[in-house]
Amino acid sequence: MDPSKVDIPPLKDLTIDNITENVIAINSNNPDPRFKYILERLVVHLHDFARETRLSTQEWMAGIQFLTKTGQICTDVRQEFILLSDILGLSLLVDSIDHPKPPNSTEGTVLGPFHTHEAEVLSHGDLMSHDENGDPLLVLCTVRDVQGRPIEGVKIDIWETDSSGKYDVQHPDRDGPDGRCILKSDAEGVFWFKAIVPVPYPIPHDGPVGQLLKKLGRHPMRPSHMHFMFEKEGFDHLITALYLKNDPYETSDAVFGVKNSLIVELSKVSADQAAKYGVKEGSALMTYDFVLVTEQGSADLRAQNSRKALEKLGRRVKIVKGLPVPDVD
Amino acid sequence: MDPSKVDIPPLKDLTIDNITENVIAINSNNPDPRFKYILERLVVHLHDFARETRLSTQEWMAGIQFLTKTGQICTDVRQEFILLSDILGLSLLVDSIDHPKPPNSTEGTVLGPFHTHEAEVLSHGDLMSHDENGDPLLVLCTVRDVQGRPIEGVKIDIWETDSSGKYDVQHPDRDGPDGRCILKSDAEGVFWFKAIVPVPYPIPHDGPVGQLLKKLGRHPMRPSHMHFMFEKEGFDHLITALYLKNDPYETSDAVFGVKNSLIVELSKVSADQAAKYGVKEGSALMTYDFVLVTEQGSADLRAQNSRKALEKLGRRVKIVKGLPVPDVD
Repeated sequence: MDPSKVDIPPLKDLTIDNITENVIAINSNNPDPRFKYILERLVVHLHDFARETRLSTQEWMAGIQFLTKTGQICTDVRQEFILLSDILGLSLLVDSIDHPKPPNSTEGTVLGPFHTHEAEVLSHGDLMSHDENGDPLLVLCTVRDVQGRPIEGVKIDIWETDSSGKYDVQHPDRDGPDGRCILKSDAEGVFWFKAIVPVPYPIPHDGPVGQLLKKLGRHPMRPSHMHFMFEKEGFDHLITALYLKNDPYETSDAVFGVKNSLIVELSKVSADQAAKYGVKEGSALMTYDFVLVTEQGSADLRAQNSRKALEKLGRRVKIVKGLPVPDVD
Repeated sequence: MDPSKVDIPPLKDLTIDNITENVIAINSNNPDPRFKYILERLVVHLHDFARETRLSTQEWMAGIQFLTKTGQICTDVRQEFILLSDILGLSLLVDSIDHPKPPNSTEGTVLGPFHTHEAEVLSHGDLMSHDENGDPLLVLCTVRDVQGRPIEGVKIDIWETDSSGKYDVQHPDRDGPDGRCILKSDAEGVFWFKAIVPVPYPIPHDGPVGQLLKKLGRHPMRPSHMHFMFEKEGFDHLITALYLKNDPYETSDAVFGVKNSLIVELSKVSADQAAKYGVKEGSALMTYDFVLVTEQGSADLRAQNSRKALEKLGRRVKIVKGLPVPDVD
């Protein structure tokens, strides 16, 4: 292609006020309407951010250098940009937008960087965490649909740290997965297993994101929690976690993962339960009843929310492959 | 410090709508009021961007990967994040905000990545570009204040590409600087030199930013131009460039550098000029009268613009070290 032949709307004389419409105009050849809309909103917000802060050249350069360092510390096993997104609340927000939950279903929360694909499939009642320093925990759960019917055969991924606050993959000398497993719900929607009581831990904070947290007067801690991920055809993928009540970081999670509906209070195993599940009476017990939304239910809610959000911008919306684009351009 | 003792405002039950105020609250311990304000606006715009686009997890991940690649291609001699800022119009915008110009003064434009600190100091009339394939160009300029008085002793940095569209530093085998120089204006505010007629060239487009331009249906070209940078104590630092009229990329500069007031039409050297300046009659001539703003004039205008911008947000403003922060929090 001869670039001088590209049919680009001519730029006007650029000022602080018209630069935004000019950048949007030059981007208007984008053949993908969804990508075009995303770029339009990105440019509007990037420019408004600079205009509202009166960003100085020196501050802009500090931002450029921060982003560069954030990119350069990334490796196959470290994703500093995800960490940045987490501590700015963006990860939680995107998950909430993409997986909207009706009020009577289980809320989602941040996935975090420690899910792996090497967890073993266990049977109900098996021990998931072999850390002898951890406090034993019996976990009894069910999974149902929004009508309260048990869902059989849901694949449930579960993972937690050891008693030192580290996931298995954070130990360079580990021999195989631990503190994680996969279970399948039975005909009653039940799944149960033995684990350890979760503990708080810090997110990686020896890089640019850690420095930013320090500058902001924030700590890098996450409150005690256990991750759960639910998959079954026909149901919206649920990524969530349960948080322990009264954790010192319950109201200041560095990555904004805690939601009230996901906070659980541990109780003690009764004599009957001890006999039934083969654990010690008085040891810690966690119970939860998860509720999954159908894929269609989630898609409908997402489309409805998209319409509302674009109407707020004064734009009519068209849903293309499940995602909104303005209807008239 | 015991992080659980940090006095952080407790987060509320997080939703799509209240996540923003919660992130701002947790960031409110920031001891630097300017940085606090910047972070507040960043979080507001980042979140509004996600809410307005209904950003999907997949799109978010594509963004994370793009930023990571952008960071990882950066080296000591390549700054892909600056390039990204350039092609999104942010660089021009930040320069316009930081160096506001009253109507009767010379406008600024993007610095670009090719200014160096190794240019030789030349005398008036010296040849700056030794590329024999270039078309000879005589450049006659003045530099004055807004009252029209000549300014003596301004340090002027000038740089341009060779006839192949490459700056000296882009030739790995070069032996010293070429196509760049430093001059000082004389008592009449005059500076003049011999160069070559500028040509269009592409910005580096073999990385993530080049791929983005391609996806957007944009070319990577910059129209023919020559860079100028003016420094003298008491005057606002002026970074600008002159653009050749009727360049094929005049209205589609990949980095939004062109402004109408910076477009010049080349003329021909007259017989008198040929004799006076020792160049060939009929060869190309570029003339321009630059006008510098005082440092105080620029600072006053910046403060005035800051007040207006923050009032638009309904905030009262305090100017601290030349930059705005909200007055009441």
